[in-house]
Amino acid sequence: MLIPIILSGGVGARLWPISRESHPKPFMKLPDGQSLLQKTFARASALEGVREVLTITNREHYFKSRDEYQPAKKTFPGVADTFLLEPFGRNTAAAIALGALKVTADFDGKAIMLVLPADHLIEDQGAFAAAVKQACDLAELGKLVTFGIVPNAPETGFGYIEAEGHTVKRFVEKPSYETAMEYVGSGHYLWNSGMFCFQAGVMLEQFKLHAPSIYEHALACWETTRSKTQGSTPMMEIDSDTFAAIPENSIDYAVMEKSEVVAVVPGDFGWSDIGSWNAISDLTVPDGAGNRIVGEAVLVDVGNSYIQSDGRMVAAIGLDNLLIVDTPDALLVADRGRAQDVKKVVQQLKLMNHDSHKLHRTVVRPWGTYTVLEEGNNFKIKRIMVKPGASLSLQMHYHRSEHWIVVSGTASIVNDDKNMLIRTNESTYIPAGHRHRLENPGRTDLVMIEVQSGEYLGEDDIVRFDDVYGRT
Amino acid sequence: MLIPIILSGGVGARLWPISRESHPKPFMKLPDGQSLLQKTFARASALEGVREVLTITNREHYFKSRDEYQPAKKTFPGVADTFLLEPFGRNTAAAIALGALKVTADFDGKAIMLVLPADHLIEDQGAFAAAVKQACDLAELGKLVTFGIVPNAPETGFGYIEAEGHTVKRFVEKPSYETAMEYVGSGHYLWNSGMFCFQAGVMLEQFKLHAPSIYEHALACWETTRSKTQGSTPMMEIDSDTFAAIPENSIDYAVMEKSEVVAVVPGDFGWSDIGSWNAISDLTVPDGAGNRIVGEAVLVDVGNSYIQSDGRMVAAIGLDNLLIVDTPDALLVADRGRAQDVKKVVQQLKLMNHDSHKLHRTVVRPWGTYTVLEEGNNFKIKRIMVKPGASLSLQMHYHRSEHWIVVSGTASIVNDDKNMLIRTNESTYIPAGHRHRLENPGRTDLVMIEVQSGEYLGEDDIVRFDDVYGRT
Repeated sequence: MLIPIILSGGVGARLWPISRESHPKPFMKLPDGQSLLQKTFARASALEGVREVLTITNREHYFKSRDEYQPAKKTFPGVADTFLLEPFGRNTAAAIALGALKVTADFDGKAIMLVLPADHLIEDQGAFAAAVKQACDLAELGKLVTFGIVPNAPETGFGYIEAEGHTVKRFVEKPSYETAMEYVGSGHYLWNSGMFCFQAGVMLEQFKLHAPSIYEHALACWETTRSKTQGSTPMMEIDSDTFAAIPENSIDYAVMEKSEVVAVVPGDFGWSDIGSWNAISDLTVPDGAGNRIVGEAVLVDVGNSYIQSDGRMVAAIGLDNLLIVDTPDALLVADRGRAQDVKKVVQQLKLMNHDSHKLHRTVVRPWGTYTVLEEGNNFKIKRIMVKPGASLSLQMHYHRSEHWIVVSGTASIVNDDKNMLIRTNESTYIPAGHRHRLENPGRTDLVMIEVQSGEYLGEDDIVRFDDVYGRT
Repeated sequence: MLIPIILSGGVGARLWPISRESHPKPFMKLPDGQSLLQKTFARASALEGVREVLTITNREHYFKSRDEYQPAKKTFPGVADTFLLEPFGRNTAAAIALGALKVTADFDGKAIMLVLPADHLIEDQGAFAAAVKQACDLAELGKLVTFGIVPNAPETGFGYIEAEGHTVKRFVEKPSYETAMEYVGSGHYLWNSGMFCFQAGVMLEQFKLHAPSIYEHALACWETTRSKTQGSTPMMEIDSDTFAAIPENSIDYAVMEKSEVVAVVPGDFGWSDIGSWNAISDLTVPDGAGNRIVGEAVLVDVGNSYIQSDGRMVAAIGLDNLLIVDTPDALLVADRGRAQDVKKVVQQLKLMNHDSHKLHRTVVRPWGTYTVLEEGNNFKIKRIMVKPGASLSLQMHYHRSEHWIVVSGTASIVNDDKNMLIRTNESTYIPAGHRHRLENPGRTDLVMIEVQSGEYLGEDDIVRFDDVYGRT
């Protein structure tokens, strides 16, 4: 019994402006059109003996994550996707302790857990599966197994593991460049990947031993969560108050670096943590001048640069070693040597309370997406996409009226006391104060243009009467 | 009698992506909100003895130019704005010859013309007016006067004039950097500014002498144009066939460099031809690190750079000496030392037949503007602004229907056989095949959102029945 646990936290600030708080790194699509999260779920589902993949993530990302899993679920129909939903981030120790408690409750303490961060890339599935098999064998023997990546460069952004065979001699912090050079040269050091494999019961024992306070508070949180959901269910919302009481720590500090039962499996399976724009850039084939272009660009004397644009024409002249990443509402231009400093920009945007650290122009909702096309004096224009079968809440606005024009698909709407269907190229008008609901009864996406009109157009002018996603 | 002639041609390719074929450099707004053309018209109108300013420009730019002149016309109510409209560009000799013929016909050969390019900046109006006065005195004596700018740097982008007092010793081509250094050091050289002053009759005599073919064809073109418009009128469209027959040449090559009656007036009045993004950058005050920002930007270790953004957040990291100019549909990132090469980008875009060399997302029409907010499968969304009192043509589309929602102002519309008023927050629907017309009867701008729906949404699906701007 092998249960992969996908840890989907973290914002990936170094991948701004694509990765943002409401659309973090795991949802970032690679050039092949798949997101890192999708790839992680498919990778986990493809492993031998897997019947369930448990995702631990923020509750804001539940619907979106489930949507992302749909293609892989068709390929692996025997694999269930279950969720533990966090009200906020509490680092990896809390998440893993709760995961281990759930797995123990659902199966037993002998069940083997494979912890996978949601935002890593692995190219060689065969080598990965072989490493997991080795790890499972060690886990069966009662080991906490960590995966160590055979380093191909003196990276200073990772912790290292000094290893001899499967024995961990010591964990070391992110080294200086010179030390990293020594490590890589010695052949005894591996990158600490953040992937782990162990029996649920063994991990809980080790928590008791090395981090008893985390264990106790996690247990209390689990009990409260389970009693609220009346048993362990496929989707569980973690109780907020008891979760907040769990001390915040990483699994490395809390357990792995202290435990006597750790082991390491060295891996060489094309692993990348996609830690910066340079890693994204590496996924694209360069032209003769070392430039990698995703989108439309005109270059005059440009070399070794990465340009990614979403619909806009980019012209570049006389540049070398630059990153240019363009999105509908924010642009990044950076020296490639400074890719790590993108997080400094995000910090500044946060301090400024600028929307672009958090939101994209297209906002994902459980029922689909909306995109603000333009805001003006007393009006706002949105493109709204509603998934087949999905429905917005029954709602009312005090300050704005709305014109709806269906440009694709069919809408079923409630407008005050009337129910009606609006087809492509038809429109309707929702006056301020009218209760209304929008639903897509069809089998294709419904695309609608909404023109809002009124003195106040804030998203908070909404009274929800009934909502299938529990948001009233 | 002094008649300023504004020559408003040229695209200003080095100022892409702001300057484009349909919105060339003279219409470019400076940080004070005024366009170069507006400033040129105001500068000309403010000169002593000016009753009329004649603009020679492409007919595509007539309505927009007239709109630009409105504020200055309120300040100088005694100054008429007249136009000679070119069907296409034919360089400066043809334009000046036709201008001289018109001025001779409207007044007499003794009238003094002051030729001003539409896209130059002059900071010191007093010093400029004094130089014009000197030039007029020389023109009265039968001279073709050119204005020479006292150089403040060894610019290699200008021609130079070797001068002694008002005497032109010779015109020299754009020099090498070393030669330019010598010129500036010697104190005998001036930049050739492209501004001229002369009697209309003297210029025509000099054309006869040095460029007889241009003279004859310009005369034929003038006669045809005048007979078509039945006399010389405030707005004259130059006849296309006879205009095409005029040899294409610059006034410098055709006349100035050959004539025995040239003179020069040296000027030091804060002149700039705004020839590149570096000149635009100079108009903004730098911060302590030498950065100049127009718009929203977050900088981490950036120096000596110019960043201009229209609504998008720009983040820059580890950059020096860069130009970043962002527009809704195109982005320029360039080394400041390569500002001249922006025109190479425009050449490439032209070869690719890419819209962005020609059009902006907001397109100016005689009646106002439209902006494509989004295009999708079978739909297109536009924001339409109609000026007070303006009206679109009575028209019909075969392939698309249109939803109109007024978000500001009041629209008077014709829809098939109905006439009606639509007020703010009201809407209407124009089915394919219906004749319709949109008009702004009010005193404030009308802003409307148009959602087009149909299988074919090209701008060429339009049948015009009646148009106040003569476009049927």
